[in-house]
Amino acid sequence: MQYFDFRSDTVTLPTDEMRRAMFEAEVGDDVYGDDPTVKALEERSANLLGKEAALFVPSGTFGNQLAILTHTKRGDEVILGDACHIMMHEVGAAAVIAGVQLRQVPTINGSMTAKDVERLIRTEDIHYPDTGLICIENAHSSGSVIKLSEMKTIYKIAKEHAIPVHLDGARLFNAAHVLGVEASELAEYADSIMFCLSKGLCAPVGSMLVGSKAFIEKARKNRKLMGGGLRQAGFLAAAGLVAVDHMVMRLQEDHELAQYLAEKLNEIEGVHVLEDRLDINMVFCHIRLKISEEDFVSRLLNSGIKINGSEDGEFRFVTNYWTPKASVDLLVKNIKNIMGEQ
Amino acid sequence: MQYFDFRSDTVTLPTDEMRRAMFEAEVGDDVYGDDPTVKALEERSANLLGKEAALFVPSGTFGNQLAILTHTKRGDEVILGDACHIMMHEVGAAAVIAGVQLRQVPTINGSMTAKDVERLIRTEDIHYPDTGLICIENAHSSGSVIKLSEMKTIYKIAKEHAIPVHLDGARLFNAAHVLGVEASELAEYADSIMFCLSKGLCAPVGSMLVGSKAFIEKARKNRKLMGGGLRQAGFLAAAGLVAVDHMVMRLQEDHELAQYLAEKLNEIEGVHVLEDRLDINMVFCHIRLKISEEDFVSRLLNSGIKINGSEDGEFRFVTNYWTPKASVDLLVKNIKNIMGEQ
Amino acid sequence: MQYFDFRSDTVTLPTDEMRRAMFEAEVGDDVYGDDPTVKALEERSANLLGKEAALFVPSGTFGNQLAILTHTKRGDEVILGDACHIMMHEVGAAAVIAGVQLRQVPTINGSMTAKDVERLIRTEDIHYPDTGLICIENAHSSGSVIKLSEMKTIYKIAKEHAIPVHLDGARLFNAAHVLGVEASELAEYADSIMFCLSKGLCAPVGSMLVGSKAFIEKARKNRKLMGGGLRQAGFLAAAGLVAVDHMVMRLQEDHELAQYLAEKLNEIEGVHVLEDRLDINMVFCHIRLKISEEDFVSRLLNSGIKINGSEDGEFRFVTNYWTPKASVDLLVKNIKNIMGEQ
Amino acid sequence: MQYFDFRSDTVTLPTDEMRRAMFEAEVGDDVYGDDPTVKALEERSANLLGKEAALFVPSGTFGNQLAILTHTKRGDEVILGDACHIMMHEVGAAAVIAGVQLRQVPTINGSMTAKDVERLIRTEDIHYPDTGLICIENAHSSGSVIKLSEMKTIYKIAKEHAIPVHLDGARLFNAAHVLGVEASELAEYADSIMFCLSKGLCAPVGSMLVGSKAFIEKARKNRKLMGGGLRQAGFLAAAGLVAVDHMVMRLQEDHELAQYLAEKLNEIEGVHVLEDRLDINMVFCHIRLKISEEDFVSRLLNSGIKINGSEDGEFRFVTNYWTPKASVDLLVKNIKNIMGEQ
Repeated sequence: MQYFDFRSDTVTLPTDEMRRAMFEAEVGDDVYGDDPTVKALEERSANLLGKEAALFVPSGTFGNQLAILTHTKRGDEVILGDACHIMMHEVGAAAVIAGVQLRQVPTINGSMTAKDVERLIRTEDIHYPDTGLICIENAHSSGSVIKLSEMKTIYKIAKEHAIPVHLDGARLFNAAHVLGVEASELAEYADSIMFCLSKGLCAPVGSMLVGSKAFIEKARKNRKLMGGGLRQAGFLAAAGLVAVDHMVMRLQEDHELAQYLAEKLNEIEGVHVLEDRLDINMVFCHIRLKISEEDFVSRLLNSGIKINGSEDGEFRFVTNYWTPKASVDLLVKNIKNIMGEQ
Repeated sequence: MQYFDFRSDTVTLPTDEMRRAMFEAEVGDDVYGDDPTVKALEERSANLLGKEAALFVPSGTFGNQLAILTHTKRGDEVILGDACHIMMHEVGAAAVIAGVQLRQVPTINGSMTAKDVERLIRTEDIHYPDTGLICIENAHSSGSVIKLSEMKTIYKIAKEHAIPVHLDGARLFNAAHVLGVEASELAEYADSIMFCLSKGLCAPVGSMLVGSKAFIEKARKNRKLMGGGLRQAGFLAAAGLVAVDHMVMRLQEDHELAQYLAEKLNEIEGVHVLEDRLDINMVFCHIRLKISEEDFVSRLLNSGIKINGSEDGEFRFVTNYWTPKASVDLLVKNIKNIMGEQ
Repeated sequence: MQYFDFRSDTVTLPTDEMRRAMFEAEVGDDVYGDDPTVKALEERSANLLGKEAALFVPSGTFGNQLAILTHTKRGDEVILGDACHIMMHEVGAAAVIAGVQLRQVPTINGSMTAKDVERLIRTEDIHYPDTGLICIENAHSSGSVIKLSEMKTIYKIAKEHAIPVHLDGARLFNAAHVLGVEASELAEYADSIMFCLSKGLCAPVGSMLVGSKAFIEKARKNRKLMGGGLRQAGFLAAAGLVAVDHMVMRLQEDHELAQYLAEKLNEIEGVHVLEDRLDINMVFCHIRLKISEEDFVSRLLNSGIKINGSEDGEFRFVTNYWTPKASVDLLVKNIKNIMGEQ
Repeated sequence: MQYFDFRSDTVTLPTDEMRRAMFEAEVGDDVYGDDPTVKALEERSANLLGKEAALFVPSGTFGNQLAILTHTKRGDEVILGDACHIMMHEVGAAAVIAGVQLRQVPTINGSMTAKDVERLIRTEDIHYPDTGLICIENAHSSGSVIKLSEMKTIYKIAKEHAIPVHLDGARLFNAAHVLGVEASELAEYADSIMFCLSKGLCAPVGSMLVGSKAFIEKARKNRKLMGGGLRQAGFLAAAGLVAVDHMVMRLQEDHELAQYLAEKLNEIEGVHVLEDRLDINMVFCHIRLKISEEDFVSRLLNSGIKINGSEDGEFRFVTNYWTPKASVDLLVKNIKNIMGEQ
């Protein structure tokens, strides 16, 4: 049975072009700096974001944690949103690996006010850790895009206090599309940026960490410490180059499909879409189920549709390259049927 | 010149009785378990809180961090209030020593809702750290006392999830006074409790960590790791015994003096006391200064009064055993003069 | 210009069969447990070593550090050889990530005596950390293979003290060849084993961590914490399956070629091969250079041969799938020429 | 019953002069920098060692770990002797708190060769941690004193590589006596020095960390992080001043008594004193017991003598201010009796 998978955009399979690029990839030992394809991707990524250098890393979590490890010294405090990925979905890694304290800013749909950020920056006091880093996530995993003005203001504050800013841009290009700017414009307001080659861009494995030459050099050694020094990584980089060169442009289609899905879901009695978080390729909604959630998920599965269970009462449906419009209609039809029978 | 010191109750000098007790103390090498006075204080402290065992530690911060290290495994998440001492004033130690992530609950005057705490407890998911500990601070360093019902509810939730609770009771007996209960009643709703012998109780150095026998045994070894295995600590314990036996009862006087100070300050034009945080021996207020804060602090110093500069726009005045009523009047008079001249 | 690369076996390019396997690989999101090729490789690896379960990880260092993190609690002591890879070549990661202390056993060519290991196991004392793990490396990166009897005795001692044993088997199959046993026989004397798919086996990226079901389950979550949760890792696993199924058998050829190289080098005046470390595909030697080392390396490079600079006075030449006998002759000829001219 | 205690010099009770000094001590809140006695001791200690500044810390372990935390960055490697206190008796703290890797130099009676130290200093390589610190212990807890020339050579090497040196001088003044130099001469060959006020100097609690002004300033904040910011620590400092001013001179008596004890023990059939480790106030010996060690220790206890059980087959007897010659004779007599009866 063929399934349509709405669980996440991490499930995206690589395109045929990617497979071919991998098949033909010229590779070498990247720990020795000998992999031309990795080098090409790193250079391409740096250029794309208007920064000096970039580094291939095995995953988004790896890239974020490597950035934290590289920017901070042990015991520093890192300011970030209370619902961001680093805080919520990285298994508490920052305290283990970097040994830093995460200071959480209250957020609404991922947005922090500049005032809150500034208020949390530590002054010099024998009781206080140093504020070593500020992290922003854009697009935010809540489905929202942070305004450029917010990034700009926070970056300005950070610079006034000589604090670096890291941008968790797992879905950076989704954000750029929504904001109608180049990704490099978002990157202007960060000292380091992590973006994912997988997710909506469909590459199988890997993310890029981008920043200054000095930062990336230091990160390269820390990557080895964290076990992320890969050998013939050019295969993954080959797919990554296709992702960066050919998949960025089409993310808008995923967003439009999500909008369409949201509209259709909202027409169903008992389904309430969270419309303030409908910026990218994700639809969050409440569903007033009378059957058990387990039954709900399993009935959809039987119809060829994969979804995750709810988190904090919210269901999330994610569109991607591999979800044709027909699959969206199928999802809607099935939910409508289930709700109708209740 | 003699000074009256309103900066904190940490500045309290020991009483003459404490000096005598120290002079006469029977001591031994406590790492070998040979110090009878330390042992007596540990037993007395455990009894006082209705727990099995207790451990002498060099400071309140040491006791809190030791509790965290002992309750958790590296990478765990600890739920606590966003303005509590562990979060705000312990130099980011929990990420360095225990390697845990602090998850901050929004608080009002130190109070967390049980609902918020429960919401933040992690379920099992490959992206999530385990919730390894919940910390409560009572009395809270904001000057407020947490209700017994709040502690009770949070403890109940914690137990339902098999999560230990640590009580930062740096000013535990102040809280007990305000709540009109024995300290042991507060201790019922915690698995471990740290309380300070210094601060309002006037002992020179030291805090107690109290809990089950198994917990304290484990903490004893971790105390060695953290460099807190002391030798003839019985001198400090001797003062601690006086603190516990004779100083607890009189804390109410400090509270009454703080109330008195608050009333008088409120009568001054330009001074606004934060009356919702007037539970213990601390008065927080906003002062509309026209002179610089530096001048303000320095003018008071010239009149024989020590105060700290403001933190987040708030001045704090703390009463203790060594602040007679006359010194309070002196403080008020001086502030009135300064404000009048402005 | 085509180069023959004697720097390491990490430089091995994948075979054509691997490229094809990758091209055709069936993949899925491995964080969701949806990648059939990763699953197949994990099952195959577990079977191969006679263990319950296995986990794909991005690198050998990652696998070793993950094993340490998973076996120990923070503050434990890990007993290992003073020249092993974890100690020497993993950037001090064990103190950063796992927070453990490495206790070094003096070794000769990677061999530890059982007596030394037993002597270093900690008893219970308030000053002592717990011994949380013993690590063995076989084949050892010094070029030597550890005897089965040594592994057996150490494992027995470890079990008597209820201490787990981790085997850094980056070149596990090389060791098995030399010992004339199945890899599973070596794995009998370890609770967890890391082996590399790259190096002599020629896969581009990745290593396997193998052990009990419970251990691997715990490691899977820790892998996420360390940023090693990959998505469509099946591409890498596809090459890994080829490595495991078709490349293990031929490692003997690399060993023979190394023997041959050693003989030839020893015939050169001024070259002294370390013959007690000639077990696998590595030749270590002292070379009495009169020209600078830099010149030496560069002259070989100009002849199409890549070697590393010396480490602690030793040159290392590594044979692999991609080094034909002719390239060995070329290396020898060139060194002979250089030495002759001196 | 009165006991004579040969277990350690950590068991030393304070002198009457210390008790009086404590009774009369002028104290203040040292976190605010208000304790004049602590300040006096810090100044006195810095002068004594010819350094700029000093810091009171709760224990020797605390002082060593604080020095490591302050000198290094997480992930650094620290070179030290394989039998030193930091390695053997500090519960693995360096990996937990500082997050550093301890690299062990083989030692004979605590002595490292300069050649070994130099060999272990890391060069720049992507696989290597940075060498962040070298630690020396003098007097060494094996009972030996390290030669000044050894310290000098190691310090010189360290400076050539821009690596700081920390001296664990828990028994610094014992070493100085034996070497016939001022303690400041030993301190010349270290960037930071920890020495204990307790042990042979008889103060009840506390050690000093001494170094440059910048180093001590940084250490002061790290001390707070580690929970070592004490309040009215002047009581302990008062005893510490007596220790530094009046107890240093008499350590020679302890050494002579240990020599005497060694001679007498050596006359007993079945007792073998380790004469190459007889530099300070400790006697190490092998005793060919026919009764169980437990019985041996308990029989001595019944005669009024406390000793520890053996460690690695060695018994250790320690002399101090509170062990009169008669008690040494009593110890010898009792052992003779026990051995005679066997």
